[in-house]
Amino acid sequence: MTDLDAVLAHADAQLDQSLERLFELIRIPSVSTEPEYAPDCRRAAEWLREELAALDFNASVRDTAGHPMVVGHGPNQDGPHVLFYGHYDVQPVDPLELWTTPPFEPSLAPQPDGETHILGRGASDDKGQLLTFIEACRAWKAVTGSLPIRVSMLFEGEEEAGSPSLAPFLEANADDLKADIMLVCDTDMWDRQTPAITTMWRGFVSEEFEIRTADRDLHSGMFGSAARNATQLLGTIVGKLRNDDGSVAIPGFYDGVANLPQANRREWERLPFDPEKFLADVGLSISAGEAGRSVLEQVWARPTAEIHGVWGGYAGDGFKTVIPAKAGAKISFRLVAGQDPHRIRQLFRKFVSAQIPADCAVTFKSYAAAPAQSMPLDGELLTKARHALTEEWQRETALAGTGGSIPILGAFRERLGMDSLLIGFARFDNRIHSPNEKYDLSSFHKGIRSWVRILHAFSE
Amino acid sequence: MTDLDAVLAHADAQLDQSLERLFELIRIPSVSTEPEYAPDCRRAAEWLREELAALDFNASVRDTAGHPMVVGHGPNQDGPHVLFYGHYDVQPVDPLELWTTPPFEPSLAPQPDGETHILGRGASDDKGQLLTFIEACRAWKAVTGSLPIRVSMLFEGEEEAGSPSLAPFLEANADDLKADIMLVCDTDMWDRQTPAITTMWRGFVSEEFEIRTADRDLHSGMFGSAARNATQLLGTIVGKLRNDDGSVAIPGFYDGVANLPQANRREWERLPFDPEKFLADVGLSISAGEAGRSVLEQVWARPTAEIHGVWGGYAGDGFKTVIPAKAGAKISFRLVAGQDPHRIRQLFRKFVSAQIPADCAVTFKSYAAAPAQSMPLDGELLTKARHALTEEWQRETALAGTGGSIPILGAFRERLGMDSLLIGFARFDNRIHSPNEKYDLSSFHKGIRSWVRILHAFSE
Repeated sequence: MTDLDAVLAHADAQLDQSLERLFELIRIPSVSTEPEYAPDCRRAAEWLREELAALDFNASVRDTAGHPMVVGHGPNQDGPHVLFYGHYDVQPVDPLELWTTPPFEPSLAPQPDGETHILGRGASDDKGQLLTFIEACRAWKAVTGSLPIRVSMLFEGEEEAGSPSLAPFLEANADDLKADIMLVCDTDMWDRQTPAITTMWRGFVSEEFEIRTADRDLHSGMFGSAARNATQLLGTIVGKLRNDDGSVAIPGFYDGVANLPQANRREWERLPFDPEKFLADVGLSISAGEAGRSVLEQVWARPTAEIHGVWGGYAGDGFKTVIPAKAGAKISFRLVAGQDPHRIRQLFRKFVSAQIPADCAVTFKSYAAAPAQSMPLDGELLTKARHALTEEWQRETALAGTGGSIPILGAFRERLGMDSLLIGFARFDNRIHSPNEKYDLSSFHKGIRSWVRILHAFSE
Repeated sequence: MTDLDAVLAHADAQLDQSLERLFELIRIPSVSTEPEYAPDCRRAAEWLREELAALDFNASVRDTAGHPMVVGHGPNQDGPHVLFYGHYDVQPVDPLELWTTPPFEPSLAPQPDGETHILGRGASDDKGQLLTFIEACRAWKAVTGSLPIRVSMLFEGEEEAGSPSLAPFLEANADDLKADIMLVCDTDMWDRQTPAITTMWRGFVSEEFEIRTADRDLHSGMFGSAARNATQLLGTIVGKLRNDDGSVAIPGFYDGVANLPQANRREWERLPFDPEKFLADVGLSISAGEAGRSVLEQVWARPTAEIHGVWGGYAGDGFKTVIPAKAGAKISFRLVAGQDPHRIRQLFRKFVSAQIPADCAVTFKSYAAAPAQSMPLDGELLTKARHALTEEWQRETALAGTGGSIPILGAFRERLGMDSLLIGFARFDNRIHSPNEKYDLSSFHKGIRSWVRILHAFSE
């Protein structure tokens, strides 16, 4: 029996103990956004530190302005150095009455299809997912006395609160945390059978703007036609934001945007994805994205502008013939590689300001921004991880993108210069952030086995 | 002394008694929109019937589905036949705490400039204004024993509630009410010194529409670019509503719209009107109306489209990266002669529907509609009234337009084929519909004298 086979067999044999540790962690109600749970957040951090210490990690709980960080360095200093990131904090549980079991009393729920659900807040996001990695390390340690490569871990307790302490912590501890690559277990499988590595995610920049026309609302019987109408001006600006072909009309918006690399295109073309079903599932049948691009390319690899809300004038029951003097909108841009969020913000403001008549005004309010990231598909560690996953799941690993944004990874890239491998075992129906969150027992079990294989592959 | 001079002198001498009658009428709290005041509305109607009966009118209170009408026919059957229209109902008084005197306890308030304000709800709108006409008739009756021409009067008690009973009442009593012309006293002077006849008002048609894209709100990280965004689609439609030159872009919208008659243009050019001040008073300096048209022409004689309110998506504090699945707007069109409101409604719906993608939907909701009206400036009675007013005020009478709409007069035109002369003595600062409504004593006094002269002029 090879080391790998022995470690996998150990992980299988110890699954009940792994599960008991996950239950212990779920029982700590580490809700980061509610001050009364601050002691529980610290308790979760201490719990993780102890688990790492038991694996011969040099581990410590580090205070921040918010909830503490946990940092641990493994016993083996050889081979590639990975930094595993996870978060021990969880979402609030409201509305509590919709839970069928108490959120912090984990339990197993066998399903008709043979699957078993691990129920509880954080079962998936991110306690179950991060433990797949710790349990894989535990199996290696138990069987071989050490880890096959150099492993560090970082756990934060503010991910569900926007990670306010993360960037300063990375800045202050750069030397301690810098590794060859980040490993993150906070994403989904492609589908129930197909493992996935997320290699590309969009950046974003978000803004609010409000237009002011007259110094008060006016009556359309008295001023209609002659007085500038703020809601109409808003419509003009919003209406010009995207061209008829779905592209964004802001001058300079596409500067530096590269076409999708052939490598990604090839990967995506073979993914089991049905664009018609993707739209039909939400009641649509016609893509609104850029003409000539596939739906996957539109949502993963092309930048866009989306209005999230508009307001202005009278929107109640009945009718008021007012000429609104104020109107506004919230907007964000999803960005891709080559676009600087701050430059896009300036281009947008210039675009809007240029359409404001000289007797009117516009104010802008900045919200968050983060750049896009894209991992090279031919990286050595990515290729090894991919093959290890394919070996475990007996399905070709999907190298997927996501149209969403993962701002914390921007902080790692920016402060520590590190790329990330996003490998997760969650499923789309895990109800994270909702009542009755669950993690499939098979996600947990095969997740542990997957990391066992990946650590082995990295050591080869 | 001529009859006219004697009647004017009598009106002057009886001003205190006229004022006492106005106070009596103001003391009746005839708020039409609040059911608890229904007995007061009837009381106001009875009060008017008695006043008319005292002038030898054949007068009666007529029941309707709502508040009653008062109809009276004067003692003289000779000469042109005028139908005077007014309304005895008043606006609610909320917020009561902003009144400096009780709204239904009328009083006089001398002003530093020598003017005296008549304070109370309805002092101007429309009790003070309608009594100028009744008191003029009273003076004629007192001095000459009769009226110089054939006078009928109609008072309704639902004008502030949208006049729901008026059209059916006109329909049912057409023979009884048909006269050569309507006289209405419910409008403003041009300025404190300049009398005005309003000869043109815009029609309108009002709509609400709501767009539906996906079957739920979506996350822009998952669907951004590919999924149709309802707020953006709304912006596109609103943004295309008017052209860059301020004109309305709906195909067919201007069909049948004639240019402003030279007669009106000549009248308006000599009006003391400062377009820069008109805009500056509300904080603007650039007209948004049709290029190449004067501001007065834009607001009085040109049709327009105005958005009154927009909604869709998230407009609260902070930020939600939602792709809204619903968005809507309220819109109205101010119309001019030659435009059929119902045709405009259909053109608008066609314009919107043509921009809705096949997988999205739009619903429309109809609100009120009324056609525009324009009186010929060379009518015999208008010319006589104009000269009478100029005689009284010693200022050239303004033949003005208004950008507002006067739907009840559409009912008279449509059901009885009658034109209207709108002659009012209110001032722009009368706070009608607001706390502390007032009517200037000089408006009341010279208003009575003006009608004395007009009745005389019509008899010549």
